[in-house]
Amino acid sequence: MGGDKAPQVPVSGAVAAAKEGIGVLLVGDQAVLERELATHGDVPSGIEIVHAADRILSTDDGVKAVRTKSDASMVVACKQVAEGRASAVVSAGHTGAMLAASTLLLRRLPGVIRPGLAVPMPSVLGPVVLIDGGANVECKPEYLAQFAVMGRVLAHEIMGIDDPTVGILTIGEEAGKGTELVQEAYALLEGTPGFIGNIEGRDVPKGTARVIVTDGFTGNVALKLYEGAAGMLFSEIRRGLMSSTRGKIAGKLAMPSFQELRKKVDPEEYGGAYLLGVRGMSVIGHGNSGVRGMTNGIRTAARGVAGDVTGHIEAGLGVTSK
Amino acid sequence: MGGDKAPQVPVSGAVAAAKEGIGVLLVGDQAVLERELATHGDVPSGIEIVHAADRILSTDDGVKAVRTKSDASMVVACKQVAEGRASAVVSAGHTGAMLAASTLLLRRLPGVIRPGLAVPMPSVLGPVVLIDGGANVECKPEYLAQFAVMGRVLAHEIMGIDDPTVGILTIGEEAGKGTELVQEAYALLEGTPGFIGNIEGRDVPKGTARVIVTDGFTGNVALKLYEGAAGMLFSEIRRGLMSSTRGKIAGKLAMPSFQELRKKVDPEEYGGAYLLGVRGMSVIGHGNSGVRGMTNGIRTAARGVAGDVTGHIEAGLGVTSK
Repeated sequence: MGGDKAPQVPVSGAVAAAKEGIGVLLVGDQAVLERELATHGDVPSGIEIVHAADRILSTDDGVKAVRTKSDASMVVACKQVAEGRASAVVSAGHTGAMLAASTLLLRRLPGVIRPGLAVPMPSVLGPVVLIDGGANVECKPEYLAQFAVMGRVLAHEIMGIDDPTVGILTIGEEAGKGTELVQEAYALLEGTPGFIGNIEGRDVPKGTARVIVTDGFTGNVALKLYEGAAGMLFSEIRRGLMSSTRGKIAGKLAMPSFQELRKKVDPEEYGGAYLLGVRGMSVIGHGNSGVRGMTNGIRTAARGVAGDVTGHIEAGLGVTSK
Repeated sequence: MGGDKAPQVPVSGAVAAAKEGIGVLLVGDQAVLERELATHGDVPSGIEIVHAADRILSTDDGVKAVRTKSDASMVVACKQVAEGRASAVVSAGHTGAMLAASTLLLRRLPGVIRPGLAVPMPSVLGPVVLIDGGANVECKPEYLAQFAVMGRVLAHEIMGIDDPTVGILTIGEEAGKGTELVQEAYALLEGTPGFIGNIEGRDVPKGTARVIVTDGFTGNVALKLYEGAAGMLFSEIRRGLMSSTRGKIAGKLAMPSFQELRKKVDPEEYGGAYLLGVRGMSVIGHGNSGVRGMTNGIRTAARGVAGDVTGHIEAGLGVTSK
């Protein structure tokens, strides 16, 4: 029931994923979901409806809604994972609520101090993972050290990156640059697998580090700025081209090339962000996700389950914790 | 003598600015500067050389170099302002050294707690100013409140923006979102001229706030990411187009439109960043500034002097300090 285009988009995404053999529990108002499913005609067998009478609205206070609306679709969906009836939960609903519901209901993996929001982003070299994208506004060095381990597992299992590099996002490349948090995290990460040291904002689009470790405040500002900058440039290019006949012809000719690039920087490619460090996979989609984003979110969640992301995180943290 | 292309670029920029009637002291090795000036033939009368035997290298530790190399061109240039022989200093040399030299030698304006680095950036609505771009890695709410006043003066006097809007860069739009620093700065800024509240990373390219207030850590990450993202997209577009004949034709046709946009997001448009809150104008150019960037830096410095940016900052802080 979550996201700007519910129930159409989540149901279409579920149908597409189920056709690929992924079992999907659709959580929400049974009558609404049945009606929506009926529009798809031949519903694949892997889809089941789990009734949830209530829902969390985009205007709700996220944390409060999770605590008070026990019948909300998002809460019931997270309970499916917590109670072992599902291995992953995917939602394009209220981001704050989904963060709270995943943290509170799925609970942390043993040894995890704070779950981190891992966000796939594009770079020249292919996808990179930024962690934390906003789950923890104020961080301690130990959180960042764990984010590095968790981000590397995601980059390897979901993005297929071998031995992913890890960098701390900061203000200068040399060790000792940046806030106290950065300096202490640097000391903790020095010598750990993949660690390449500090990176600057300009290194993000270059793919200098495939796992970008940062506090949730800086990370959230960075990822939204990055997304906004790409969107702004594309619409400015379109506007510029559409303002002349010559430009319109150029735009037509350049279309295949633009579409390829657009796909490369498309946030729907991975279907959303991943809350890592909880028991189960939690995928938090964009509120305005389309069917492609939703389907990709379900696909990558399933891939994360098959690749045992949570097991690898547990093992990784066990090895590195001193 | 500063920047990757010294002495050619600074001397060419100085000659171009002097031709427009701006008086320029060229600070550096007299013989080198005379030789470089001679290549320009007809040197305008407004240029004078001030000899400085030493220089700060890009490999130097900035703060240390300023303290120990008293004959370095950058130090001598800042002294020209401190001692009243010049009203502004412009350099494309070592950024950290220039920050240190400007702060130490020009000294703070009365009432300024910390000078802030104001960086012009592009947006859909025209230029915006981000402050602080990296002068203060750790900030207090009072610094941010002053950055707002100083940034508004620059936006008005240099960019010609009437009654510029001010936003705090943070993780969510609602008041109460973000770090303690953001929340306290919000309380200080509430009700002050132009203040529109919190903005998110995605609002930067939209121009939602024309003055973006943030700590130097977040600001530096944001501005470098923004610059990097724009550069990355342009080179990816070029690469995509150049890979097919069809694309090459499109690229040729789209050239005027691309060039216009490139100019819009060109960091050389304003010649660099401004250290605000010191006695005099201090413009810190990109190390790889071209002649256009250098000339624009000198021009905007002169405009800042003519518009009495420092006087307006002093007055603005006097009015708002309680």
